[in-house]
Amino acid sequence: MSKPLILVTNDDGITAPGIAALIEVASRYGEVLVVAPDSPQSAKGHAITISSPLRLKENKIFPGIRAFECNGTPVDCVKLAKNVILKGRQISLCVSGINHGSNASINIIYSGTMSAAMEASLEKINSIGFSLEDFSSAADMTLSAMIADEIIRKSLESGFPGNAKLLNVNIPKISVDECKGIKICRQADANWNETFKEALDPRGQKYYWLTGEFINFDEDEDTDLYALKNNYVSVVPSMHDLTDYQNKDGFKFLER
Amino acid sequence: MSKPLILVTNDDGITAPGIAALIEVASRYGEVLVVAPDSPQSAKGHAITISSPLRLKENKIFPGIRAFECNGTPVDCVKLAKNVILKGRQISLCVSGINHGSNASINIIYSGTMSAAMEASLEKINSIGFSLEDFSSAADMTLSAMIADEIIRKSLESGFPGNAKLLNVNIPKISVDECKGIKICRQADANWNETFKEALDPRGQKYYWLTGEFINFDEDEDTDLYALKNNYVSVVPSMHDLTDYQNKDGFKFLER
Repeated sequence: MSKPLILVTNDDGITAPGIAALIEVASRYGEVLVVAPDSPQSAKGHAITISSPLRLKENKIFPGIRAFECNGTPVDCVKLAKNVILKGRQISLCVSGINHGSNASINIIYSGTMSAAMEASLEKINSIGFSLEDFSSAADMTLSAMIADEIIRKSLESGFPGNAKLLNVNIPKISVDECKGIKICRQADANWNETFKEALDPRGQKYYWLTGEFINFDEDEDTDLYALKNNYVSVVPSMHDLTDYQNKDGFKFLER
Repeated sequence: MSKPLILVTNDDGITAPGIAALIEVASRYGEVLVVAPDSPQSAKGHAITISSPLRLKENKIFPGIRAFECNGTPVDCVKLAKNVILKGRQISLCVSGINHGSNASINIIYSGTMSAAMEASLEKINSIGFSLEDFSSAADMTLSAMIADEIIRKSLESGFPGNAKLLNVNIPKISVDECKGIKICRQADANWNETFKEALDPRGQKYYWLTGEFINFDEDEDTDLYALKNNYVSVVPSMHDLTDYQNKDGFKFLER
């Protein structure tokens, strides 16, 4: 039996330590293809490049691994992998990350890492985004790599249930010994309380730079933020159907 | 009683005909603030600008309307409106569009127009994205403007039910007479079948340009695509909780 084909991508760019850790893990379980941005693409959400040409360049930084860097977004990388490099050859699993920084709760919306995984999930490929709650480029990837190994192995062995296609996995910034386990969670209701740093550029023109702090409004114990705070890895099964089924009938007053 | 404050934005940019039509409608019902991109930002999804400074410039193109153009994404526009221009003053309604091109079904994920509306919804602001199934910048906005008028009026009168905060409204490319009405729908299960146009630039370097066709896999009659195909305006109540509740328990095999 041929080895499963595993597509690896991220949003921090092909030189980020997190993707190197993920490639090492993925290559234990399958044939790995890497297609990742040639520069940091954090917070690019589900952006795609439609108004300018995309470039792909083969990259030899990972010994024995076929890898390409791309000038586009994380979602562009997945589309190019599928349509240009693999020309429709079946991908068994897409893994994205390991992201330098949490993508728990509402961060899934902004995250290039999770958007890349979601893009693969739209193509009916089982997809997993891995993120570590540590923005540092020197972050310790030991626990994250162990968790990625375990979840990739079990996902390849068991497949995903029902029509599920996407997991958002977040790893707390703790040691292997401190980690209590893995919890299946829902996305916490949290948001950024933002401010803009206002300043003048050298020409005397005003500019704004986004900053903010993350606020959790959700006190329930079944959320990703609760799991992370309590030293568990959070796994949120996620999807791309944004329909608000709960409130759908309440809008009948708009029908005619 | 003071007039409601309505924030208007889009992703086609502040000079697009669609936003002019939406501003005209919104100004019948409230005090309008416009904050929109200074250049086209289609397909930017929920991207935000974190690695470069943002600029805001007051723009006088809409007589009697306070308007700003921004060098960032649609989501940046909403964040700047709330935090910098309004400094926390309450927004009654955010409307985004009228987009030149459909944002029905999975297009909600890629759309800057819908991401701007979703960003406002995250701030607990009732938000509506309007999109016309016509990419042309010369598109006839007559029906779209009538629909926006009706939905804005009713939304301000009745509010949104429950904890609903976001509507994805799409208008078919037909005349006012041909339009059969307005339907509350769910997001259809559809996707793009994509290809990349491959070519050489003047330096002989290969490049790729995204192209594709939209495929509907969903034959049910309660979807936005079905409504549009049958000459109805589609309204999909939408949300930002991406948790796949249906398949959540099926992933218990990953817990420990």
